[in-house]
Amino acid sequence: MASLVSSPHASSLPFSSTHRLHHTPNLPTLSFSRPIKTKPNHSLRCSVSIEKEVPETERPFTFLRDSDDSTHSPSSSPTSVRARFETMIRAAQDSVCEAIEAVEGGPKFREDVWSRPGGGGGISRVLQDGNVFEKAGVNVSVVYGVMPPEAYRAAKGSASSDQKPGPVPFFAAGVSSVLHPKNPFAPTLHFNYRYFETDAPKDVPGAPRQWWFGGGTDFTPAYIFEDDVKHFHSIQKQACDKFDPSFYPRFKKWCDDYFYIKHRDERRGLGGIFFDDLNDYDQEMLLAFSTECANSVVPAYIPIVEKRKDMEFTEQHKAWQQLRRGRYVEFNLVYDRGTTFGLKTGGRIESILVSLPLSARWEYDHKPEEGTEEWKLLDACINPKEWI
Amino acid sequence: MASLVSSPHASSLPFSSTHRLHHTPNLPTLSFSRPIKTKPNHSLRCSVSIEKEVPETERPFTFLRDSDDSTHSPSSSPTSVRARFETMIRAAQDSVCEAIEAVEGGPKFREDVWSRPGGGGGISRVLQDGNVFEKAGVNVSVVYGVMPPEAYRAAKGSASSDQKPGPVPFFAAGVSSVLHPKNPFAPTLHFNYRYFETDAPKDVPGAPRQWWFGGGTDFTPAYIFEDDVKHFHSIQKQACDKFDPSFYPRFKKWCDDYFYIKHRDERRGLGGIFFDDLNDYDQEMLLAFSTECANSVVPAYIPIVEKRKDMEFTEQHKAWQQLRRGRYVEFNLVYDRGTTFGLKTGGRIESILVSLPLSARWEYDHKPEEGTEEWKLLDACINPKEWI
Repeated sequence: MASLVSSPHASSLPFSSTHRLHHTPNLPTLSFSRPIKTKPNHSLRCSVSIEKEVPETERPFTFLRDSDDSTHSPSSSPTSVRARFETMIRAAQDSVCEAIEAVEGGPKFREDVWSRPGGGGGISRVLQDGNVFEKAGVNVSVVYGVMPPEAYRAAKGSASSDQKPGPVPFFAAGVSSVLHPKNPFAPTLHFNYRYFETDAPKDVPGAPRQWWFGGGTDFTPAYIFEDDVKHFHSIQKQACDKFDPSFYPRFKKWCDDYFYIKHRDERRGLGGIFFDDLNDYDQEMLLAFSTECANSVVPAYIPIVEKRKDMEFTEQHKAWQQLRRGRYVEFNLVYDRGTTFGLKTGGRIESILVSLPLSARWEYDHKPEEGTEEWKLLDACINPKEWI
Repeated sequence: MASLVSSPHASSLPFSSTHRLHHTPNLPTLSFSRPIKTKPNHSLRCSVSIEKEVPETERPFTFLRDSDDSTHSPSSSPTSVRARFETMIRAAQDSVCEAIEAVEGGPKFREDVWSRPGGGGGISRVLQDGNVFEKAGVNVSVVYGVMPPEAYRAAKGSASSDQKPGPVPFFAAGVSSVLHPKNPFAPTLHFNYRYFETDAPKDVPGAPRQWWFGGGTDFTPAYIFEDDVKHFHSIQKQACDKFDPSFYPRFKKWCDDYFYIKHRDERRGLGGIFFDDLNDYDQEMLLAFSTECANSVVPAYIPIVEKRKDMEFTEQHKAWQQLRRGRYVEFNLVYDRGTTFGLKTGGRIESILVSLPLSARWEYDHKPEEGTEEWKLLDACINPKEWI
């Protein structure tokens, strides 16, 4: 199954296949062949390129193409899932940025709008070195691309080998955000919600359009306040429980498994929810679920930041936060599928790497003393807990 | 051809093959299948595991195995290339550490000695938060492992497919070091010299033992002082010219090509020399050349540090150095073959990641103003120059 990469940024792209794309002339083509796990035990290599982005002076009403496959399905009509998902992620970007600016009390987000000549684009918003946040990035992006036909056939599983369809156009849209506060007692937050569609291959009659949802919200404190962790996880569970009682336990575990720094045998933080490749539920239900999750970011996170942002701290607290930021960098650069994929396919580098903290630290062989607050955090990253 | 990974640390291992190793019981086996470029246009996948290291209280006289294939070739005899290479890298470690401690004027290296039950081990030395150096790591390691037979056959190119040899034992030894000074006008230095051997497969009569040398010395200033760059490159050229007039131009370019941060289209620093898979010269000559290169580290670098370590600087200078440290982290975690390989095969994590700076910084969309000193450095990283 083709997979939409999980990503802390909005330049995520779907990918699969062991074969090269047909190259579009004038595109800078970056190819790589790193195997990516999609579904369990299913590993595919890919080679995808996207056009170089160009800066825009104004936010467009929509990043969708006018002509977006309009004869077969009115994808750009305001009622299409594509259009409603774009509306949702842009609203989520607005509301999160508004909440952050309210906490900041002065400093404002800087906005960069960009587009790609062949369609799609994005809005990157960054607030750096504010009163409360070291770095806060909230991005939306809409990507049109083409995936190799083998990926589509792999996804279908049933297509006979003599069909030979051409490259399959895809659409991907997402909101993604990483919020790094200054105060070492205030946790870092990451969320990302994304939607992915393939067109039906034009030369294979009856082959269906495919779609998937992915995303999650997870948080990464340097110090554990149990009330904060419980509050955060409770809000995630509430959002999940409105749709399916199996969602929270399943997506909580998926989150613990995904944000895993293998070479350290520890997780990046204290988890939350994560899901990918979701298409085995009603499409409207999953759109509503993604919307609910995105809307839960502010109530799950902002009260915690309000409570912690002015707590007194020592240089030692700050140094520990910086060490944990180092782990954040390790995860994002070494393991995160969205980041590693974005770097290799020519995504907008500054949007991708806005997930990195303003500053990070690596001390040789640092081991917190057993029983300390630092040790408790590390222990919870090594042995994920049930918080609620 | 099987390749010894280039590495800023001493846990480098040779690797190749698309097949899994025979697993030795009780080894933690980490497998991965990232294609690695060895020789140009030659990409192989690998799956290698090494034993968990155990701490030692004393430096052994040698990390070589007593019984090291002694019936067929006396590899552990003091006159073998293995033994003389180990002696050389341990002497290089001693002399570099001594020179660093002399500059520090007080602070001393901390030493960790470790071994692996099946043979081999290493000495990691780290001086952190000193008077002059933020972090200085100098490591030696000796690794015994087994590579899949396909790698050996791929290296040979001529073996017929019905030979079916078993896994091929290998030996790898290296010294590696990254030195990050505090003063933003004093450059970071990296060097690594390594030697690799395979045993002849036991069940293929007449198949030869193989060996390779690799390594290099490169430096990474945050600000350009032309005299420093010329001095550094001149010493590298002198070392090269003693052996072959083609070495410096060839290895200088190899260095510029290797330390390339693709997603930024810029190099990590201002280069030096780099070579890999060298076996097409006399073995004694290459041992002497590696020795000469290792011995050139102190005269190439220490005078520059002495000159720059007490220069006055501003917060802006420091912030720029920290941003360049961020690039160092990006290169090491995303591209460096030694680091990425070490992380995935279960090498000693703290030895591998000692190459990361004590602190680093990522600012969103930072662009130095044209004509500034910061811009000049960036320009030289984007467009490598001939310095001498």
